[in-house]
Amino acid sequence: MSTQPSRVLETFPNPQPERDYCIRIRIPEFTCLCPKTGQPDFAELTLEYVPEERCVELKSLKLYTWSFRDEGAFHEAVTNQILDDLVAATQPRFMRLTAVFNVRGGLYTSVVAEHRAPAWQAPQPVQLP
Amino acid sequence: MSTQPSRVLETFPNPQPERDYCIRIRIPEFTCLCPKTGQPDFAELTLEYVPEERCVELKSLKLYTWSFRDEGAFHEAVTNQILDDLVAATQPRFMRLTAVFNVRGGLYTSVVAEHRAPAWQAPQPVQLP
Amino acid sequence: MSTQPSRVLETFPNPQPERDYCIRIRIPEFTCLCPKTGQPDFAELTLEYVPEERCVELKSLKLYTWSFRDEGAFHEAVTNQILDDLVAATQPRFMRLTAVFNVRGGLYTSVVAEHRAPAWQAPQPVQLP
Amino acid sequence: MSTQPSRVLETFPNPQPERDYCIRIRIPEFTCLCPKTGQPDFAELTLEYVPEERCVELKSLKLYTWSFRDEGAFHEAVTNQILDDLVAATQPRFMRLTAVFNVRGGLYTSVVAEHRAPAWQAPQPVQLP
Amino acid sequence: MSTQPSRVLETFPNPQPERDYCIRIRIPEFTCLCPKTGQPDFAELTLEYVPEERCVELKSLKLYTWSFRDEGAFHEAVTNQILDDLVAATQPRFMRLTAVFNVRGGLYTSVVAEHRAPAWQAPQPVQLP
Amino acid sequence: MSTQPSRVLETFPNPQPERDYCIRIRIPEFTCLCPKTGQPDFAELTLEYVPEERCVELKSLKLYTWSFRDEGAFHEAVTNQILDDLVAATQPRFMRLTAVFNVRGGLYTSVVAEHRAPAWQAPQPVQLP
Amino acid sequence: MSTQPSRVLETFPNPQPERDYCIRIRIPEFTCLCPKTGQPDFAELTLEYVPEERCVELKSLKLYTWSFRDEGAFHEAVTNQILDDLVAATQPRFMRLTAVFNVRGGLYTSVVAEHRAPAWQAPQPVQLP
Amino acid sequence: MSTQPSRVLETFPNPQPERDYCIRIRIPEFTCLCPKTGQPDFAELTLEYVPEERCVELKSLKLYTWSFRDEGAFHEAVTNQILDDLVAATQPRFMRLTAVFNVRGGLYTSVVAEHRAPAWQAPQPVQLP
Amino acid sequence: MSTQPSRVLETFPNPQPERDYCIRIRIPEFTCLCPKTGQPDFAELTLEYVPEERCVELKSLKLYTWSFRDEGAFHEAVTNQILDDLVAATQPRFMRLTAVFNVRGGLYTSVVAEHRAPAWQAPQPVQLP
Amino acid sequence: MSTQPSRVLETFPNPQPERDYCIRIRIPEFTCLCPKTGQPDFAELTLEYVPEERCVELKSLKLYTWSFRDEGAFHEAVTNQILDDLVAATQPRFMRLTAVFNVRGGLYTSVVAEHRAPAWQAPQPVQLP
Ligand SMILES: [Ca+2]
Ligand SMILES: [Ca+2]
Ligand SMILES: [Ca+2]
Ligand SMILES: [Ca+2]
Ligand SMILES: [Ca+2]
Ligand SMILES: [Ca+2]
Ligand SMILES: [Ca+2]
Ligand SMILES: [Ca+2]
Ligand SMILES: [Ca+2]
Ligand SMILES: [Ca+2]
Ligand SMILES: [Ca+2]
Ligand SMILES: [Ca+2]
Ligand SMILES: [Ca+2]
Ligand SMILES: [Ca+2]
Ligand SMILES: [Ca+2]
Ligand SMILES: [Ca+2]
Repeated sequence: MSTQPSRVLETFPNPQPERDYCIRIRIPEFTCLCPKTGQPDFAELTLEYVPEERCVELKSLKLYTWSFRDEGAFHEAVTNQILDDLVAATQPRFMRLTAVFNVRGGLYTSVVAEHRAPAWQAPQPVQLP
Repeated sequence: MSTQPSRVLETFPNPQPERDYCIRIRIPEFTCLCPKTGQPDFAELTLEYVPEERCVELKSLKLYTWSFRDEGAFHEAVTNQILDDLVAATQPRFMRLTAVFNVRGGLYTSVVAEHRAPAWQAPQPVQLP
Repeated sequence: MSTQPSRVLETFPNPQPERDYCIRIRIPEFTCLCPKTGQPDFAELTLEYVPEERCVELKSLKLYTWSFRDEGAFHEAVTNQILDDLVAATQPRFMRLTAVFNVRGGLYTSVVAEHRAPAWQAPQPVQLP
Repeated sequence: MSTQPSRVLETFPNPQPERDYCIRIRIPEFTCLCPKTGQPDFAELTLEYVPEERCVELKSLKLYTWSFRDEGAFHEAVTNQILDDLVAATQPRFMRLTAVFNVRGGLYTSVVAEHRAPAWQAPQPVQLP
Repeated sequence: MSTQPSRVLETFPNPQPERDYCIRIRIPEFTCLCPKTGQPDFAELTLEYVPEERCVELKSLKLYTWSFRDEGAFHEAVTNQILDDLVAATQPRFMRLTAVFNVRGGLYTSVVAEHRAPAWQAPQPVQLP
Repeated sequence: MSTQPSRVLETFPNPQPERDYCIRIRIPEFTCLCPKTGQPDFAELTLEYVPEERCVELKSLKLYTWSFRDEGAFHEAVTNQILDDLVAATQPRFMRLTAVFNVRGGLYTSVVAEHRAPAWQAPQPVQLP
Repeated sequence: MSTQPSRVLETFPNPQPERDYCIRIRIPEFTCLCPKTGQPDFAELTLEYVPEERCVELKSLKLYTWSFRDEGAFHEAVTNQILDDLVAATQPRFMRLTAVFNVRGGLYTSVVAEHRAPAWQAPQPVQLP
Repeated sequence: MSTQPSRVLETFPNPQPERDYCIRIRIPEFTCLCPKTGQPDFAELTLEYVPEERCVELKSLKLYTWSFRDEGAFHEAVTNQILDDLVAATQPRFMRLTAVFNVRGGLYTSVVAEHRAPAWQAPQPVQLP
Repeated sequence: MSTQPSRVLETFPNPQPERDYCIRIRIPEFTCLCPKTGQPDFAELTLEYVPEERCVELKSLKLYTWSFRDEGAFHEAVTNQILDDLVAATQPRFMRLTAVFNVRGGLYTSVVAEHRAPAWQAPQPVQLP
Repeated sequence: MSTQPSRVLETFPNPQPERDYCIRIRIPEFTCLCPKTGQPDFAELTLEYVPEERCVELKSLKLYTWSFRDEGAFHEAVTNQILDDLVAATQPRFMRLTAVFNVRGGLYTSVVAEHRAPAWQAPQPVQLP
């Protein structure tokens, strides 16, 4: 596998497809460019998903994240785009992407977007005391 | 765009209107005047919303916030007014404003208000373990 | 308005009665006397309510709190009494009082009590991701 | 009242039986003996309950806790036993006991058990924003 | 009982099978090997379960955890395997395993999987204020 | 010993007068009255001292603290007065009193005062890595 | 005393001038204007001093702080100016002013300045273990 | 080695006596009895020392700690006694014992005592930036 | 002033050169490339200095920081280089640069370097209790 | 360079040998075996040093750390041994190793050891306010 930035997302087979289980990946090193000013923007991404048949490969996810380093991207648009790419690659039962951007102009912005497979029913959560 | 305080709230088109996604903006530098004593009041605002067709522009939101610097405003009234102005400008599916005021007289006050579009149905939340 | 302790709770008109919004007031300086030993007790109160037609005035709330300084009061009884007084003064849609008492005999006690107007229906909470 | 360890749990009348309110008591100083090795075990207990006609008296609760100091007790069994004793003494509408034991063998164990009066209906919780 | 790593999970009878109560065990010292590189991986496991007839014995759980020290194991697969082994040994009403792995390549991964006995109905949670 | 507020500070013999050791007592429940407005003030005191021949008795220290509950007292003056009283009662080698007052007018004030016996030489501190 | 912003700093006599003791005041609500852009700046000030003959009066300090609300002020200059004004008003043995400004352009700036009376000798600090 | 409480402190040879290095042991599970009331007291001990020829064995230190479970002991006296016993057993170059007792009567007490071998010179600490 | 990355560091005159005061700037958004692998590295820089005649201008400092975004740089070398550049631009009395790099290979590295003007004497620090 | 555990410590030339600067490396994933029981032990190491002519290479340091995974090692001895190996490889001006071991038998142990080159004079630390 290359060590160049890449938009290709590698996957591997879900080792336990009978179960609705959750994979959570925190990515503190996302950076892109502000499309208005060209200056760097920084964010911490959190990806949470319930896999169907494919899981996203970690190193490939890192190279994908890296590929935005020289791209201009608005907060709201880039969060939805990354979610769309990850959904296209893994076709998950459920996926949520949270992007917490660094302060700009004294304001702290975050964006959260979700995808749900049409046929998928979220299991009733068990809340232990 | 001006760098004067302004009550005008600029917006831009929602880049992903097919999705119910959440934008969250923390605004730690709100200040106005107490209408009884004329002394400065301070608060941290948090705005959370699900956009419909328009998103609020960040710099414009900052200038709007600044416009209260010389205004007298009661805690309960100003929180509801800011929410009303933001709803009028963006016509969101859902919007919540939380105002956490600094201590006065040994008491710590916060006010939280919400707006919901009549036709909007909140999606069933997916609670991942 | 006096600066003497007082059991009178002043109120003012709710500036936005069309909305079910929440006012939250933290009161870290409550003190009364233990009815068994006469020694001082200390607690932090938190008041949360959805106003109907009246909001509680902050300075008056502070003088009311002060009025317990020389009173004997059991933990469970005084929490319910303060809630009753606040309900009588403001007739809210919903009100909750939380009293977190300082440690006594190595035990940490808190009491939480709520009032709900009979006709009031709590709005379905919107849980943003 | 004695200052000896005691299994007797004193109670007093609930001052506000018309309301479903919550009493929460944190007890950081529970210690007993491991029945296998005879060595001391330590835990922090948290008791939460909705009283019916009787509340548990704090000093008596402390003496009761003390009574386990020289007793052998398994984690799972002692948590259920203490809950049973407190239920027998107070006949509450609802009661929950949480026992967080200190690390043993590199493992951190806690046990949580609940009792619900058969006729009692838990009130719909009001979730304020 | 041996002090060698072992895949055998010892159990003991549930002391209070009439109750749906929760046992929670935090295991901060899990380590295995990365199947790709052979390098050590580290994780903190959290096990939560509602026992049926058997509880897992703590020392045996520690030896079981130790048995992965020289094994290659993918994050997603090993979490599901450990859950499967614990379910086979204790046949619980409900069981959840959370594995929080140490950072690799700047990414922080965790995996959460659950098992539910088919006949078991999760009790309605009581949410005290 | 009485359970009334009292300005008398009881002492007991220092059990190890050959050593320069440190006793530190945190007192979170100090309250007095503001001499200007008559309203209650609150502070957390911390007493640190190296005893000579006498140590201050804890229950007596609590009753002493209680004795300020109905007294008017300026921040700077009361901190120095309490230190003077404790020095008079125990004649320590070294004593420091820190008073952290609750917020007033948006300002957070604390006062720290020290006493050193003229003949006492502070031991060279050993700073372990 | 007025409730208008004011550059006049009121003082009162030091109640214990024989002692080198420390008064520490945290002022979280400082705001001025950026001299380049005219936009609001925010900072938290901390004042620490050893008084000589005069202490600064708290309400007057608050009105003084308020007087910068409509003034343009560079970070480095305003911190030194406030220290100079406080030194002129109180002539302390020692005084330190710390100004922690809110983030601007992704950078977090603070400035710390001190004044020492020429004749004053700082007491050797006693470091208790 | 026994698993009974014991006042005997086992030691082992210091593996690196040429170096002044520091061993720090936190002991959160100390409990004894109050000599006045007979009720349990709890403390967290921290032992720090620079060994000479002997180090204290950990299991023996645990059994020693356990031996106070049924003993009456004043805060100030027991801290000095434990330090004396540890000094007698290990003859260290330097040793410090810190005892942080649980709250009693609303007061939080800790005691810190040190021993220094007469011939030992504390090395000049290197303070890295 | 440009909004392009730039190695030019702008300065402005120190407004209070008579005083040894401290300016501290935290820069959380430093990123460069690993010279071995070409992959992005991330760090948080903290600059602390006592100015002589010039202070570093904040916006210029930001553009300077940005200029490393496409540069290969070893941890130890880049920290010393940035310090050298800042010293050359401002000729400070004292300057310290701390670089805290994100985890790589499970290891967390930071580097701290200082410059001191030969003629400058650090003032004796006043340690207030 | 290999990806096998290895006792060989690679180094590279110090890029700035004229300066006394500090490199600090936190290593949270150290594990070895208890020489008495054969069971795994875990620790977090922190290495701090002032380089002379050589710096330790990070990947080699990781492989070195890994080489203890199957070794029996006492807390006090292994900390001193690792420091000795690192000193032998880099011949630093100053080096400190801190090892914080996980809890064993309810006790939390850490060991700190330092090496100082005989000819090296620690620079006078500059303590900025
Ligand atoms: Ca960061
Ligand atoms: Ca935007
Ligand atoms: Ca603030
Ligand atoms: Ca109001
Ligand atoms: Ca009671
Ligand atoms: Ca504990
Ligand atoms: Ca057990
Ligand atoms: Ca860990
Ligand atoms: Ca994987
Ligand atoms: Ca408090
Ligand atoms: Ca005053
Ligand atoms: Ca500036
Ligand atoms: Ca404790
Ligand atoms: Ca005592
Ligand atoms: Ca390097
Ligand atoms: Ca050992």
